[in-house]
Amino acid sequence: MIDLASLNAATRADLVAALDGVVEHAPWVVEGAAAARPFASLAALLAAFERGISAGDEAARLALVRAHPDLAGKAARAGALTAESAAEQSSAGLDRLSEADYARFHQLNDAYKARFGFPFLVCVRRHGRESLLRQYDRRLRNDAAAELRTALGEIVRIVALRLDQRVTAQDRLPVHGRLSSHVLDTQRGRPAAGVAIELLELDGDGAGRIVARAVTNADGRTDQPLIHGRPVPIARYEMRFAVAAYFAAQGTPQADPPFLDTVPLRFAVAEPEANYHVPLLVTPWSYSTYRGS
Amino acid sequence: MIDLASLNAATRADLVAALDGVVEHAPWVVEGAAAARPFASLAALLAAFERGISAGDEAARLALVRAHPDLAGKAARAGALTAESAAEQSSAGLDRLSEADYARFHQLNDAYKARFGFPFLVCVRRHGRESLLRQYDRRLRNDAAAELRTALGEIVRIVALRLDQRVTAQDRLPVHGRLSSHVLDTQRGRPAAGVAIELLELDGDGAGRIVARAVTNADGRTDQPLIHGRPVPIARYEMRFAVAAYFAAQGTPQADPPFLDTVPLRFAVAEPEANYHVPLLVTPWSYSTYRGS
Amino acid sequence: MIDLASLNAATRADLVAALDGVVEHAPWVVEGAAAARPFASLAALLAAFERGISAGDEAARLALVRAHPDLAGKAARAGALTAESAAEQSSAGLDRLSEADYARFHQLNDAYKARFGFPFLVCVRRHGRESLLRQYDRRLRNDAAAELRTALGEIVRIVALRLDQRVTAQDRLPVHGRLSSHVLDTQRGRPAAGVAIELLELDGDGAGRIVARAVTNADGRTDQPLIHGRPVPIARYEMRFAVAAYFAAQGTPQADPPFLDTVPLRFAVAEPEANYHVPLLVTPWSYSTYRGS
Amino acid sequence: MIDLASLNAATRADLVAALDGVVEHAPWVVEGAAAARPFASLAALLAAFERGISAGDEAARLALVRAHPDLAGKAARAGALTAESAAEQSSAGLDRLSEADYARFHQLNDAYKARFGFPFLVCVRRHGRESLLRQYDRRLRNDAAAELRTALGEIVRIVALRLDQRVTAQDRLPVHGRLSSHVLDTQRGRPAAGVAIELLELDGDGAGRIVARAVTNADGRTDQPLIHGRPVPIARYEMRFAVAAYFAAQGTPQADPPFLDTVPLRFAVAEPEANYHVPLLVTPWSYSTYRGS
Repeated sequence: MIDLASLNAATRADLVAALDGVVEHAPWVVEGAAAARPFASLAALLAAFERGISAGDEAARLALVRAHPDLAGKAARAGALTAESAAEQSSAGLDRLSEADYARFHQLNDAYKARFGFPFLVCVRRHGRESLLRQYDRRLRNDAAAELRTALGEIVRIVALRLDQRVTAQDRLPVHGRLSSHVLDTQRGRPAAGVAIELLELDGDGAGRIVARAVTNADGRTDQPLIHGRPVPIARYEMRFAVAAYFAAQGTPQADPPFLDTVPLRFAVAEPEANYHVPLLVTPWSYSTYRGS
Repeated sequence: MIDLASLNAATRADLVAALDGVVEHAPWVVEGAAAARPFASLAALLAAFERGISAGDEAARLALVRAHPDLAGKAARAGALTAESAAEQSSAGLDRLSEADYARFHQLNDAYKARFGFPFLVCVRRHGRESLLRQYDRRLRNDAAAELRTALGEIVRIVALRLDQRVTAQDRLPVHGRLSSHVLDTQRGRPAAGVAIELLELDGDGAGRIVARAVTNADGRTDQPLIHGRPVPIARYEMRFAVAAYFAAQGTPQADPPFLDTVPLRFAVAEPEANYHVPLLVTPWSYSTYRGS
Repeated sequence: MIDLASLNAATRADLVAALDGVVEHAPWVVEGAAAARPFASLAALLAAFERGISAGDEAARLALVRAHPDLAGKAARAGALTAESAAEQSSAGLDRLSEADYARFHQLNDAYKARFGFPFLVCVRRHGRESLLRQYDRRLRNDAAAELRTALGEIVRIVALRLDQRVTAQDRLPVHGRLSSHVLDTQRGRPAAGVAIELLELDGDGAGRIVARAVTNADGRTDQPLIHGRPVPIARYEMRFAVAAYFAAQGTPQADPPFLDTVPLRFAVAEPEANYHVPLLVTPWSYSTYRGS
Repeated sequence: MIDLASLNAATRADLVAALDGVVEHAPWVVEGAAAARPFASLAALLAAFERGISAGDEAARLALVRAHPDLAGKAARAGALTAESAAEQSSAGLDRLSEADYARFHQLNDAYKARFGFPFLVCVRRHGRESLLRQYDRRLRNDAAAELRTALGEIVRIVALRLDQRVTAQDRLPVHGRLSSHVLDTQRGRPAAGVAIELLELDGDGAGRIVARAVTNADGRTDQPLIHGRPVPIARYEMRFAVAAYFAAQGTPQADPPFLDTVPLRFAVAEPEANYHVPLLVTPWSYSTYRGS
């Protein structure tokens, strides 16, 4: 991490080195931004990048888009991605796809390139796997001009996230969302402590992979939000609460088998930069949930 | 179906024919009951059977228990069950087991017979598959005398269910449970009509098989309870409500993807003869459920 | 009560006698309806009255409206109302007004008559006292023609309620609403029996008068709905549930003083002919309510 | 306010002056505490006072209790209280009693003194008016020795609250409770902003006096808890939420009159030093509440 003041004071060469890779294979954007120093805020730095990206003529913009690798493509499989791209594709599980899934992405990438003449570009960290696949469908219906604008907008989102991870400043870019929970024992009128929670991102077929585990503390919350400090990927989720184990630990009488055992809450995230607070109010015979704040 | 008055007035031979198979391979119990006519009620008829079953000496009682087939055993696979046993074992899915499951039941049956000297006897219609397997574990811990009493008690339960399906009377035996639901749209303050519901019985591994489907009517209820007119098997269940489709049909704005899509309610039934009313109160952003009445 | 078949078969004189007073001081409407016999249903009988009421010229319609007494007016205080009017005004508490309230109705009646030239007419049984007062305000803004139509519509509503109380038939007129409740103990997952409930109709100043009392039965419901067999007056209500006394009777630990003691649910009825089901789901530390069905 | 370090460093005379009145009419307790300096924490300072209070013989302890004024007594009416006592009695509304209430306290004070020989002593800030009256009833049943211990314990509570208002330190005495709320619009899945809230302390007869008003902010919370920085008096409360006005401001369709208008939540506080979070989850047709955290 480098702080914004140091970046403002750095030599041009040091600045270019510090921000290398923030824009994929396009050092000229970084150099252009360097000319706009000093930056009063991270937001101003991002705006400079945004101006740089849209400043070129159409050929330059196309070249910028074309410099990006395919999603889950050959470069990824060959280990030929930049470190940033590799980490991003991994965050969405794209480095652990089945052969069938690789084939599906390959086919979609080809269809997209055949239609638009440039690779499919998306800010991967904002999407779960299902949502990524849905993006192809939707964007294949765009016309070419709209789609080029969309692709450049995604590059700006990627840049914002990379700057957020590289540069510290007084301000923060609005690129973080949060997913949190809270368990209230409404039978006793107090927080439910010691409840095990699993968070799964769901796949199309109802299966899912666990993306977080936690146990509630004395306040019925998890010490950290289940997802925070990054976008919450657009996806369907299931939170599972070990309710019967909690009530058993309290000595609360329950049916055999208990009416409620593992309680699943299933919901979807649509806004990666928003806060999703999804609490559980529970007795051995009832529960409720809602999107809170 | 025969009504109780006709049974009271029937010749001994007709009565024995009408109740043939109510007790497995033990016509003498039926004949003993016949001597106690007339019966004022179904409850009185069942009591006569119960007396008959416990009237014999230990050898007779043991013989009665031993006359029953194994659960998911060789007789079942060979199609050599009485019609009643076949239907009962089928109700719990025991005619559709994998080879591994057959092997597991086989092993449990053998362990049980080795311990007690008679086959494992249970009123199958009161249990889901998981619960059946749990019964072996629990009952293997009994001593022999207690276990014989348990087995005879299960025969009485089987008899009660069979009488309920054969004989009509003013009274009903308390052998029926009920599982019902109700969907309230608490955003509009009215019943949610047209909501598709699936009911699954869950297996140990989280998978399940669909045991009922329904769509809510104008009152937000299903025209028939999801399970009724029989015991509700002791099992874990999941009800799935197609909530996003309902709100879309109402023209209600939802996120994309909708925060709530298919809402799963997961609960267990512990009392097969009880009423389980499990409603859903729902908006596009919240829901609650409880065991109601 | 007379049944519709008898009414169809009655002499003209007997029919007029049987329906005397259904329309206030306008026997000619009854006589006109008599000519339309036989009636296939109560709905057809009401329709005949409705046609009779709107059949006359404007002078006849005005005369019909003018034949009605003032609400809470001099005739009421002097005991000079028809039996029907007296019972109806009493149902809204208009026979128990303070001097100040009498004066207020007197002033509103005068303002209304000064504006329209006929007395204020409303189907009293459909309104609480607050709602009645609001009607003056709203209807004083109408033009004369609209207001005459409104007054005649109210007469039809009055006729419908009177026919409902005089004549039995296969069909019922849609003049009944219902207000009911249900208490679920979500701590124990079962109906809360023995909970005392009071229903108050609220006045403008937060005070109220008790209009029903009940105690929940084994199913957590009241044996009869709190209001049924008549319109539910448009009004604000408060239901009060003696929750702490219920949990104390169950031996449930509670704080001292208990967190929840008498739980008030405050709501308004806007549709007198609709069903309002307002349940309470409660633990010693939480509750929820909703308009159910 | 004086900080603990300064108190530790002060001359004996300055210390006595700074803590004058922390114990009513008993400067010797302060002087005794002074000898125990330095204090590592507020808790240590309070413990020194507590030791001082219980150190004397019974005569000294009785004298200490007898030095206190009656609750709502002649000294209070004559303006002859210490500033601390006056503020405390005012906090419970004891300076605004009706003649009938004064008479009632007078009678209870006399009964208490006749029984125990010393005035009734209670940490007034921990009680609402109803709760104060209940204390007399309960404590009149104590024996004299237990009651003297109770009275001294109340003095320690009074001292703790006075120290909390006079002395700052790293630690805080556990004398503060909190009453807060939160309004969630579960129709829209977001915090309800701009909801007017009134908090009333209820009297025996259902009336109440407003003790706080607030409007929810963008997060659906009040900028400050409704009660904080002091004990939450043991009392029955009603929070009133202007729900219909909120939904009208959102343009949400509602019935006329709206099903829910002002929603009252009625609950009691039993632990003055605890946190009471009492949220409202609401749509135009449903709501729920619970003791949260």
